[in-house]
Amino acid sequence: MLLVIKSGTVLTPSGPIEANVVVEGERVVALTEHSSTAFDERADRILSAEGKYVLPGGIDAHTHMEMPFGGTFSADTFETGTRAAAWGGTTTIIDFAVQQKGTSLLSTLDKWHEKADGDCAIDYGFHMIVSDVNDATLKEMESCVDAGVSSFKMFMAYPGVFYSTDGEILRAMQKARETGSTIMMHAENGIAIDQLVAQSLAEGRGEPVQHGLTRPPELEGEATSRAITLAGVTGAPLYIVHLSAAQALAAVAEARNTGQNVFAETCPQYLYLSIEDLAKPDFEGAKYVASPPLREKHHQTDLWRGLRTNDLSVVSTDHCPFCFKDQKELGRGDFSKIPNGMPGVEHRMDLLHQGVVAGEISLARWVETCSTTPARMFGLYPRKGVLAPGSDADIVIYDPAAEQTISAETHHMNVDYSAYEGMRLRGRVDTVLSRGRVLVENGEYHGSPGHGRFLSRDLCQYLN
Amino acid sequence: MLLVIKSGTVLTPSGPIEANVVVEGERVVALTEHSSTAFDERADRILSAEGKYVLPGGIDAHTHMEMPFGGTFSADTFETGTRAAAWGGTTTIIDFAVQQKGTSLLSTLDKWHEKADGDCAIDYGFHMIVSDVNDATLKEMESCVDAGVSSFKMFMAYPGVFYSTDGEILRAMQKARETGSTIMMHAENGIAIDQLVAQSLAEGRGEPVQHGLTRPPELEGEATSRAITLAGVTGAPLYIVHLSAAQALAAVAEARNTGQNVFAETCPQYLYLSIEDLAKPDFEGAKYVASPPLREKHHQTDLWRGLRTNDLSVVSTDHCPFCFKDQKELGRGDFSKIPNGMPGVEHRMDLLHQGVVAGEISLARWVETCSTTPARMFGLYPRKGVLAPGSDADIVIYDPAAEQTISAETHHMNVDYSAYEGMRLRGRVDTVLSRGRVLVENGEYHGSPGHGRFLSRDLCQYLN
Amino acid sequence: MLLVIKSGTVLTPSGPIEANVVVEGERVVALTEHSSTAFDERADRILSAEGKYVLPGGIDAHTHMEMPFGGTFSADTFETGTRAAAWGGTTTIIDFAVQQKGTSLLSTLDKWHEKADGDCAIDYGFHMIVSDVNDATLKEMESCVDAGVSSFKMFMAYPGVFYSTDGEILRAMQKARETGSTIMMHAENGIAIDQLVAQSLAEGRGEPVQHGLTRPPELEGEATSRAITLAGVTGAPLYIVHLSAAQALAAVAEARNTGQNVFAETCPQYLYLSIEDLAKPDFEGAKYVASPPLREKHHQTDLWRGLRTNDLSVVSTDHCPFCFKDQKELGRGDFSKIPNGMPGVEHRMDLLHQGVVAGEISLARWVETCSTTPARMFGLYPRKGVLAPGSDADIVIYDPAAEQTISAETHHMNVDYSAYEGMRLRGRVDTVLSRGRVLVENGEYHGSPGHGRFLSRDLCQYLN
Amino acid sequence: MLLVIKSGTVLTPSGPIEANVVVEGERVVALTEHSSTAFDERADRILSAEGKYVLPGGIDAHTHMEMPFGGTFSADTFETGTRAAAWGGTTTIIDFAVQQKGTSLLSTLDKWHEKADGDCAIDYGFHMIVSDVNDATLKEMESCVDAGVSSFKMFMAYPGVFYSTDGEILRAMQKARETGSTIMMHAENGIAIDQLVAQSLAEGRGEPVQHGLTRPPELEGEATSRAITLAGVTGAPLYIVHLSAAQALAAVAEARNTGQNVFAETCPQYLYLSIEDLAKPDFEGAKYVASPPLREKHHQTDLWRGLRTNDLSVVSTDHCPFCFKDQKELGRGDFSKIPNGMPGVEHRMDLLHQGVVAGEISLARWVETCSTTPARMFGLYPRKGVLAPGSDADIVIYDPAAEQTISAETHHMNVDYSAYEGMRLRGRVDTVLSRGRVLVENGEYHGSPGHGRFLSRDLCQYLN
Ligand SMILES: [Zn+2]
Ligand SMILES: [Zn+2]
Ligand SMILES: [Zn+2]
Ligand SMILES: [Zn+2]
Ligand SMILES: [Zn+2]
Ligand SMILES: [Zn+2]
Ligand SMILES: [Zn+2]
Ligand SMILES: [Zn+2]
Repeated sequence: MLLVIKSGTVLTPSGPIEANVVVEGERVVALTEHSSTAFDERADRILSAEGKYVLPGGIDAHTHMEMPFGGTFSADTFETGTRAAAWGGTTTIIDFAVQQKGTSLLSTLDKWHEKADGDCAIDYGFHMIVSDVNDATLKEMESCVDAGVSSFKMFMAYPGVFYSTDGEILRAMQKARETGSTIMMHAENGIAIDQLVAQSLAEGRGEPVQHGLTRPPELEGEATSRAITLAGVTGAPLYIVHLSAAQALAAVAEARNTGQNVFAETCPQYLYLSIEDLAKPDFEGAKYVASPPLREKHHQTDLWRGLRTNDLSVVSTDHCPFCFKDQKELGRGDFSKIPNGMPGVEHRMDLLHQGVVAGEISLARWVETCSTTPARMFGLYPRKGVLAPGSDADIVIYDPAAEQTISAETHHMNVDYSAYEGMRLRGRVDTVLSRGRVLVENGEYHGSPGHGRFLSRDLCQYLN
Repeated sequence: MLLVIKSGTVLTPSGPIEANVVVEGERVVALTEHSSTAFDERADRILSAEGKYVLPGGIDAHTHMEMPFGGTFSADTFETGTRAAAWGGTTTIIDFAVQQKGTSLLSTLDKWHEKADGDCAIDYGFHMIVSDVNDATLKEMESCVDAGVSSFKMFMAYPGVFYSTDGEILRAMQKARETGSTIMMHAENGIAIDQLVAQSLAEGRGEPVQHGLTRPPELEGEATSRAITLAGVTGAPLYIVHLSAAQALAAVAEARNTGQNVFAETCPQYLYLSIEDLAKPDFEGAKYVASPPLREKHHQTDLWRGLRTNDLSVVSTDHCPFCFKDQKELGRGDFSKIPNGMPGVEHRMDLLHQGVVAGEISLARWVETCSTTPARMFGLYPRKGVLAPGSDADIVIYDPAAEQTISAETHHMNVDYSAYEGMRLRGRVDTVLSRGRVLVENGEYHGSPGHGRFLSRDLCQYLN
Repeated sequence: MLLVIKSGTVLTPSGPIEANVVVEGERVVALTEHSSTAFDERADRILSAEGKYVLPGGIDAHTHMEMPFGGTFSADTFETGTRAAAWGGTTTIIDFAVQQKGTSLLSTLDKWHEKADGDCAIDYGFHMIVSDVNDATLKEMESCVDAGVSSFKMFMAYPGVFYSTDGEILRAMQKARETGSTIMMHAENGIAIDQLVAQSLAEGRGEPVQHGLTRPPELEGEATSRAITLAGVTGAPLYIVHLSAAQALAAVAEARNTGQNVFAETCPQYLYLSIEDLAKPDFEGAKYVASPPLREKHHQTDLWRGLRTNDLSVVSTDHCPFCFKDQKELGRGDFSKIPNGMPGVEHRMDLLHQGVVAGEISLARWVETCSTTPARMFGLYPRKGVLAPGSDADIVIYDPAAEQTISAETHHMNVDYSAYEGMRLRGRVDTVLSRGRVLVENGEYHGSPGHGRFLSRDLCQYLN
Repeated sequence: MLLVIKSGTVLTPSGPIEANVVVEGERVVALTEHSSTAFDERADRILSAEGKYVLPGGIDAHTHMEMPFGGTFSADTFETGTRAAAWGGTTTIIDFAVQQKGTSLLSTLDKWHEKADGDCAIDYGFHMIVSDVNDATLKEMESCVDAGVSSFKMFMAYPGVFYSTDGEILRAMQKARETGSTIMMHAENGIAIDQLVAQSLAEGRGEPVQHGLTRPPELEGEATSRAITLAGVTGAPLYIVHLSAAQALAAVAEARNTGQNVFAETCPQYLYLSIEDLAKPDFEGAKYVASPPLREKHHQTDLWRGLRTNDLSVVSTDHCPFCFKDQKELGRGDFSKIPNGMPGVEHRMDLLHQGVVAGEISLARWVETCSTTPARMFGLYPRKGVLAPGSDADIVIYDPAAEQTISAETHHMNVDYSAYEGMRLRGRVDTVLSRGRVLVENGEYHGSPGHGRFLSRDLCQYLN
């Protein structure tokens, strides 16, 4: 099967070029001039992308499908979640295997393979959440790297659940340094936050906005600085997940200026939503409960600037949907019981394209932060993240002139609300290919569970 | 004429890919998989690049061919200089047209077109040095931009020659803001420096090392900060040329953190040489006299780090050769009379590849700082700076395993010494194409004056 | 004549103490416990200060009496200005002798001695404004120091009048380093500002607010940074006068953190007034024209903080009054012709006490910034700036509970308006002594011209 | 009893003055001119201080007399320790009452009163070490403040002993904010450090220098930043104890620039000793084991600068002596068992005077950092920290011309070694008075246990 995508504007991280993209089987086999007809004869299909962008499929490096959390599970399965991702132009996700305390990393990985295997519409990889640091799990980190899981997430928040002490973080970082793998950090000072939460509840303040007010941005900044120091002491590569606060960005920027291997991602919700959403009446704020919390609006300005300066290198979603009904409602009257997380995997590419429309970022940064950099950051390049001969044919044809309105009624995520309900956007995914197979075209879905394969990843490709 | 460069590792700013590069006429028309034979039949020639790098030709954004300076001229003509560049894998230069006070910018441009026209082995563009800021020349800046000269260099040093006052700089920056063009700045506080120079000479200290000691790095840092402030007040894009000092780098990094349109280049001499070279006895230090001067060695560490963090975005040479005999010797006993400048256009690609060998930068940063970024910075992308369908076929095949020793006896620049005499390097240019024509192959030169064409440049492609 | 001031709260820079102050002749001879009667018998007079503050007389280190400026003179003579100062609790001024280009420093000093001699109500010293830097004047700086003038003011603004180039500043700083004297700097980039002024006038915008808009705070920050760098290169002590902008404060704070001998003063007008005053209609904004200009209000917050952190060490007035009628009016339609300066010498102590009332600064910082530090900064300690045995009996008894309203109708400065007209204040000067003589008491003035003597000053007493 | 100290140079925090100091009973009752004879007739005694400094007695705000630590006690009792302090010109100590987990703060305070009562040669106050944060102890903090204990020390190090979690620190800081009291912080990341310690021991490296290598300065910087953030979130005044590392100083300086109520002390051992001492062979390094550990020498430069810039406001000793024999020896082969602490209470004034001799600090800063500031910082001013009418007659007459050599053979601390053995110093304590009583004179000791009284302290007098 040979497919030629003709006459599109191919987006690369260094700028647009005018080229045809030739796909044979699962891979890109050539890029040619618009005027080239070299592959036309042999082509099974010629697809015009005139007036449209052709870009490497999005890579969402931070999702949580069917994740256990507080007695419930995030609402998207690998099947529904990856289908929604595909609809939105994301052709790779990296999800998190979640070690339960007292279990092993490798058995955890097995469990997650089981969950995902045969279900995914698009390719997927895993990070490993390390909840339990001990001699055995540290040793297992080596096996994880060998098994293509080269990044380990730890938490400075959620005491009693995922929380690791600074001593445990230090030990895991030493192992990361040794293996060349990356520590991903949820950087909030959960120990201090838990006091503020308890005080808020003790004062009878249990409404959703308190989720935000009890997690001040200073405590994200602090934890970020602390993680950076520990990474500096050990020499480990560090990747700050879901950075939301100007204070944390400042810490990252300072470390990056010194050349330390410190990286950070932000998420669309921190770019577009704010604590005002958390304060919506009638418990509607619960829809916006995630950690770190949505911030005051002025942080958005800093985050967009961070995307431009590359102090924020990646945009992921932290997709972790819980339905308003039955799930979010578990926390009525006690915000600490609201499942933490928001849906988003379907809209990342669109929302960031909107940043292009608004002049916040360039087309080059759009594709770089949403595809190329995640690929390089997590050891997938050049298989993913770029349209080049030999790359997987994960391709999005994007129509910059189309318009759309986000709504829970039309989205494909398995969740009963949208955090962006009614938001009007310029640009829309037109066609999506995953390893050469058309998943989305003409508003129809042609994918199927099990097309997606597990990606064994290399180490971070940015290390100095 | 169709040429296929087979089996090489193509270097891109986001990392290496394995691809063939297909050239037809003057342009790249396709990239294909290593295994592809799609173009072989039609090919006039197939060139193997197995085991070698294939990269977009180097772009040296800062050269001074046959530049008038203190009664003499830099020793390379456009003919000899561009030939040497080609030998070293540089296929584009951007040289400086030098306005003499009292003359017009457009007549200056004409003069430089005359100088270069018919002489160049490779493509070339011009920046305009603005020595005289007045209503007429400000107006002419618009015409320069229309004529493809979208960057204007000014000097905070060299009072009485190129020096512009802060008021003149302010006015030119306002015009740059208005036209979207870039102000390039030689940032040294020449007014203060001239006092130190006069004092040194008055004390009878006229030897070359005094050139360095009378231009302390703090005064480069100061001028850099000042230029950044003026750019901030006016909104002009700013590009700091030949940054040599940690203090200046700190100022640039701080501005870039805020998202200001501030960029900087450094040069190989600041990465490899130091004030110790300036202090060489028997007037040999004169070989190393350039401004800003070579610094103490610890600055090198900062500059390499700046290249990694992208606070230094570009590596240029500031190639401005003067022969030791007759030219440098003009300053025996009075360092202020030594013509300022060093040769380098031929060795930039090699010297920076040596940084890859030493682990200072990645292959991606090598090609980015030496080719892709200069192209984007100065409005040449995607015609230059990338190997993509539609790009000019400016291509270097580089053998990373070869070894060489730099020497004036073997170099091709028209100057009687080398600043790197005897330096042993890993890696060497193997084959060089300019717009599809082979200029260098098998150690032989096939270029000719006049092959190179003037490049009308767009605006900087990095602006926020 | 022996005088005992009983039962007051004596303010010191490290906090209040309860003590009597014993004055004999011109000096303080003892401090005793409130209950002490040791000196009562011999006392010619016993003055109760119960419920009041007793503090060392204010030192205003920056005034311009009868200063020539643009064809006119500042409206206060040494006689009227020092009388007004005394009314306001200031018992020492340091005024500026103004070198005219082409004249000598020593003849300038003679001229200023002539002006002041026999006219002053309080003690006075001189700084020297150096307008003309050459071998002769540099040599004269040594004689000035010997003559008790140990500080030299230079201007980075006012091209063609007081402006010195960076080269001239460098030379003067080298001499300052050599003599241990201090360079005081008017830090605004006047060269760039003059362009903005010319453009504003060319656009027909000649109203007073343009004075502020054409002197952006960034250009004060820039000049401050530049002065600091030049001081660093030369090793000279540097004192930034009339700091008004957050950007300049940041530069000073950064330098002070490194331990460099950099100091700064601000003035009451920058703490209480803003560019909104400059924008008052009907040319009333002209009353507020001074350089640097009044800033946007948010700078006030930073300046108060700077006073607390000691990044701003001194509060002076830059008293330089011009009558609205006939003088300020010279600039109707052309703000550049409005004489620069505002009255203030009479109200500094009160306005800063108001900062105490408002909780911005402590009593300790009030007396420190307004008296002790200026004394130490300009070589007058412990003769001035402290109430201690042996000090000059320059004493203010201050009633913190009194109230007053500032008005041109009641003030004693020779100027037809007040910048603080109608402002209500807590606290008022009760009694003022200069070298043991009562100048103000019970709302009556007992001073006389010629009581004040010239103060030959030592070097700065803060140098590291 | 009336005593006149004649003809000395009285040191004040704003500089020296020439004055006699008149003492009656326990207090200073007057300062008079050198020439004054006003009190001579009534004087019981006249003491000449000609050629000598007269300064307020030293205040050592950080000592640990007979402190329980790891099964042993620090070797100085309140009796021996305060006597040694007196010998060295320190007339006030503030020691630490140490809450054992599970006990109450007030019972702890009672216990410490018992220990000290009747034993001390000089006046003393207490800080409270809070080991156990709960509702009851938080409530007791209020009572402590009422009882004159207005500062609470917490530990980010020593897990399992004194360590408090960030949540506990947050709660205590909230109470500090509420009561206006100060949190004193031992800022080292003990959780991470303990891992490094365990790893070192596991690798068989148990020698004293490992104490330093397992407590890297970055982890002091980190903890300092964290404490500052928590103080910022809660609004509590924060005082960093025994700051030793440049990284921590940078964090303090940054916070102080913003005007936050953050203060820090350093200790003589960090100014004069280094990790090279810890590395002395034959277990001699154990003499230098304290936490934070001695650092590499370059930190000393930063600490002296911090004293000049007032980013370090206080010099204390952290006096906590353990004899080499039997006590330090507990840690042979396992540095983690070496009792942490060094002797120093006797030599602080001399060692800092040596800083004056060396040009590191001025006389004003000597008396300020060693006496005036600790008094103001801990609510003792003007009773202590200044020589003024009404102050306690805690007076040191210091001979700047004398010389001495430090040695365990001659010192008065109850410990069998000196950390400064053989160090030669300029300057020596001549005479010491405590509340009017001569304790030391002519090399003889006239003090007695029980002369010293408990000082009920007010709140910090520096708060903004
Ligand atoms: Zn998280
Ligand atoms: Zn997550
Ligand atoms: Zn230049
Ligand atoms: Zn140049
Ligand atoms: Zn001025
Ligand atoms: Zn002035
Ligand atoms: Zn401690
Ligand atoms: Zn301690």
